[in-house]
Amino acid sequence: MGILVTVAYDGTAYKGWQEQAVGTPTVFSVLKGAVEGVMGCQVRMLGASRTDAGVHALGQRAHILPSAPCPIPTEKLGAVLNTRLPDDIAVTAVGIVPDSFHPIADAISKTYSYKILNTPLRNPLISRYSVHETTPLLVAAMEEACQYFVGEHDFAAFCATGSPVSSTIRRVNSLELSVSGGLIDMQINGNGFLYNMVRIIAGTLVGVGMGKIRPDGICDIIASKKREKAGKTMPAHGLTLVNIFY
Amino acid sequence: MGILVTVAYDGTAYKGWQEQAVGTPTVFSVLKGAVEGVMGCQVRMLGASRTDAGVHALGQRAHILPSAPCPIPTEKLGAVLNTRLPDDIAVTAVGIVPDSFHPIADAISKTYSYKILNTPLRNPLISRYSVHETTPLLVAAMEEACQYFVGEHDFAAFCATGSPVSSTIRRVNSLELSVSGGLIDMQINGNGFLYNMVRIIAGTLVGVGMGKIRPDGICDIIASKKREKAGKTMPAHGLTLVNIFY
Repeated sequence: MGILVTVAYDGTAYKGWQEQAVGTPTVFSVLKGAVEGVMGCQVRMLGASRTDAGVHALGQRAHILPSAPCPIPTEKLGAVLNTRLPDDIAVTAVGIVPDSFHPIADAISKTYSYKILNTPLRNPLISRYSVHETTPLLVAAMEEACQYFVGEHDFAAFCATGSPVSSTIRRVNSLELSVSGGLIDMQINGNGFLYNMVRIIAGTLVGVGMGKIRPDGICDIIASKKREKAGKTMPAHGLTLVNIFY
Repeated sequence: MGILVTVAYDGTAYKGWQEQAVGTPTVFSVLKGAVEGVMGCQVRMLGASRTDAGVHALGQRAHILPSAPCPIPTEKLGAVLNTRLPDDIAVTAVGIVPDSFHPIADAISKTYSYKILNTPLRNPLISRYSVHETTPLLVAAMEEACQYFVGEHDFAAFCATGSPVSSTIRRVNSLELSVSGGLIDMQINGNGFLYNMVRIIAGTLVGVGMGKIRPDGICDIIASKKREKAGKTMPAHGLTLVNIFY
């Protein structure tokens, strides 16, 4: 029996969920340290999604296999772990999963949010979690463009160059914008995302909003399979991993 | 002619808007330094509301009287000031006001928000701007209690003891709760607020939510004019000055 914890974090201070290099502070290393401290044993831990440096999460998952029985009842584990975690990381839910569970392979879909504050002047209360764009964006054009991303496509044009993946085909189930007080929140759900895919889609929508790309030009960009046809990769701190569905 | 700037700030790092003691970092001192740097002259500056240490603002106002003509056009002043301000402070609007304007005396009403995350486990993406309360609160009772605060009352029971004010009578125009995903957002508008009044009202509503105070018990607390009858003073970081109306 494994433990599946839902993890939320403000990624500002971290080198992402997990990095190869030893010694860099990652959410993974901080969380694993807290888990092993509470459980009093070594654990195997695997995250559902390797978020990049500066990216935030509300619904990251970590699958934990302790090397000894957990001394804390499941219903208290979250609160106990949170006392050991820094202010910018918290466990928000804890569940038990069968031995056969795999946090990456069993994920049906993921939802990400990308936030853009589109006002003349910045706002310090949301600047940690959004990118500030002063050029007025044509939101109606961006909304029109969203539909062309939905469906199963080869998203090679929306993948950081040099990413070692066997297939660049992914399914986007939904892509929607909500706008409130100048804050554009792009929510995207899909069965998987290529490296930087959400940030490049956000950058391409900004290109549409600036009038540089026609809404139906998205189809040509997808068909081209060329990274340079798509928009820029938006900064990490506007991105939040909202949820993972199993 | 004076300049009225709207100021937003994350109050986490500051000793409030303004303090008497010299040498403590305040939003006022940082903003005044930026204004004088941009204008190249000394200015007189007066804020509309002296927010406490740790309190945030979306719609604080600062009235600026430069000792020399401002070299920057008004429409560009906000953006130029923001390049000199740290990430946690920003000017969000700039306007010109007549000589007779007074940022405190001319305010018709102010709106504050107090946020309480009422979930078993904390959330690091909103913890800077909300207080975490794990005890499940009876939101319907809290909503019922809100109506008793509305109107012109002597709010002496909702004022920090020892505050030197000539009158403790204030008018609350509206007090409403909105709840989303476990986050209770209390929005209050009034013609003025006593020292700690919003934080004590929030603490009293939490007392109602915990079943310690009956909703209609608010009337008795107001009538008592005794601070000890009301609830606790909630922490500063859940409070945001949302707007000031002129």
